[in-house]
Amino acid sequence: MRQEQTSPAVQKRVKDSFDLQGLMSHLGARLAHIGPGRVHIVLPARPEATQQHGYIHAGATSAIADSAGGYAALTLFDGESEVLTVEYKINLLSPAAGDHLEAIGTVLKPGRTLTVCRLEVYGVQADGARKLVANGQQTLIRVHRTAE
Amino acid sequence: MRQEQTSPAVQKRVKDSFDLQGLMSHLGARLAHIGPGRVHIVLPARPEATQQHGYIHAGATSAIADSAGGYAALTLFDGESEVLTVEYKINLLSPAAGDHLEAIGTVLKPGRTLTVCRLEVYGVQADGARKLVANGQQTLIRVHRTAE
Amino acid sequence: MRQEQTSPAVQKRVKDSFDLQGLMSHLGARLAHIGPGRVHIVLPARPEATQQHGYIHAGATSAIADSAGGYAALTLFDGESEVLTVEYKINLLSPAAGDHLEAIGTVLKPGRTLTVCRLEVYGVQADGARKLVANGQQTLIRVHRTAE
Amino acid sequence: MRQEQTSPAVQKRVKDSFDLQGLMSHLGARLAHIGPGRVHIVLPARPEATQQHGYIHAGATSAIADSAGGYAALTLFDGESEVLTVEYKINLLSPAAGDHLEAIGTVLKPGRTLTVCRLEVYGVQADGARKLVANGQQTLIRVHRTAE
Repeated sequence: MRQEQTSPAVQKRVKDSFDLQGLMSHLGARLAHIGPGRVHIVLPARPEATQQHGYIHAGATSAIADSAGGYAALTLFDGESEVLTVEYKINLLSPAAGDHLEAIGTVLKPGRTLTVCRLEVYGVQADGARKLVANGQQTLIRVHRTAE
Repeated sequence: MRQEQTSPAVQKRVKDSFDLQGLMSHLGARLAHIGPGRVHIVLPARPEATQQHGYIHAGATSAIADSAGGYAALTLFDGESEVLTVEYKINLLSPAAGDHLEAIGTVLKPGRTLTVCRLEVYGVQADGARKLVANGQQTLIRVHRTAE
Repeated sequence: MRQEQTSPAVQKRVKDSFDLQGLMSHLGARLAHIGPGRVHIVLPARPEATQQHGYIHAGATSAIADSAGGYAALTLFDGESEVLTVEYKINLLSPAAGDHLEAIGTVLKPGRTLTVCRLEVYGVQADGARKLVANGQQTLIRVHRTAE
Repeated sequence: MRQEQTSPAVQKRVKDSFDLQGLMSHLGARLAHIGPGRVHIVLPARPEATQQHGYIHAGATSAIADSAGGYAALTLFDGESEVLTVEYKINLLSPAAGDHLEAIGTVLKPGRTLTVCRLEVYGVQADGARKLVANGQQTLIRVHRTAE
């Protein structure tokens, strides 16, 4: 699959915002792909992200899924816009295991006010084998960036 | 409001499981109340849990909500049972700001196989003022604890 | 429980809109209460609303829940506003049985653009016994009524 | 797209169950495709299914989506199994307009106990033009058919 790239300006906008998310760096997550309407975020498996059985916690899985969807939406808007999560729903399909998780946010329906994204999270083994471990749907609202 | 307490055995079971959640300690979250069918988890506001505007990230808000619901369900089952999150949906109602967040998981409908919880997260100011910042609904499945 | 009533103008606005919903009359649903931020809709059990086991179909249960939430939001806005459902999530907790269903939509968080409602549906027996059969959460958007 | 067909026995099982859903016939819905893990249901636009603006009501849209997902799951199980909806979440993306709606339920993750489906509903014009008007996600539980 060819992965279309966004403009350098959009890339920079997404990266700058991502770098401001204290939670993402605290979890050890990183941006892995920024395409138009599609963003991937990778989270290495490590003890700091686990639930009681040693799998990655639904909260960590959701956190990268939520950010991936938000940034997927952001790629479609101009520099005066920001997006906020209105709500999301996520099914945890399988134990979130593997070398790392990869969350993919994809815009299903962009809109002037509301945007809806599909959220997918894969557990990826060291040998590259992938398994869908979570699947969700997210609603976002576009707001005007306020001067600081 | 009187907050009913669970038995010492249930308290211990919930605390022991919580202590195994690497994500909870990594975020700085702690158990604040364990009642029958109702668990509270507190998350102090700190830079490690933020999104790009400095509010607490939806992923961190969700993580404590998800754990609170899961442990609320666990209080109703015997020591041979564990609960796993099937899915949840959460609305982020207001920016998650304050001195700390308090997530409250409450069992709406317990079941032999599936349990449904209400998830509420409040932003609490240093003076004690509270505001509902997120509200959700969660489905959990009871599984038999496997010997290790 | 005292059930606060809304103004006659709001009552009329909700009733007029409800009467335009072909689905509600086709299902045999009726408005049972219009309070500020809270609307009840009743659906008698009948073969036209069933699923394959003779219980009321999740789609019919959801339809009255969705309308109840929408009208609960509408009671809080002026006559120039309409509300549309953005999304909802609903858990079917028990078979929807009884003499009739009563859906209750309650505004959890009103907003200038988005409003979030709690949706509850009770199965009510002929003797008045009630059981929660579905519980959900809904996001609505306010739009300006367009001239016709 | 080739649409794989299921066995005659599965087709019959799905059709027999569908025919027992009073709501589906009352709405005028019909089965349009039964494939392995994928079922389509069509609902002609008509006044009996509308909301207050003349579009198809979210409840009717959801009803066919919910049934499509349930039957998609049912195609994967043996004749001793039935499926019940645990919960679903649906986003109404655009006004549900057109000559008819087509709901497509697709199994994302089958399971011994729980199955998760994707729900899509398209508005289809008389000339065949299609638009995604609703998108959702559903959790189902498999139960053993009880003798009657």
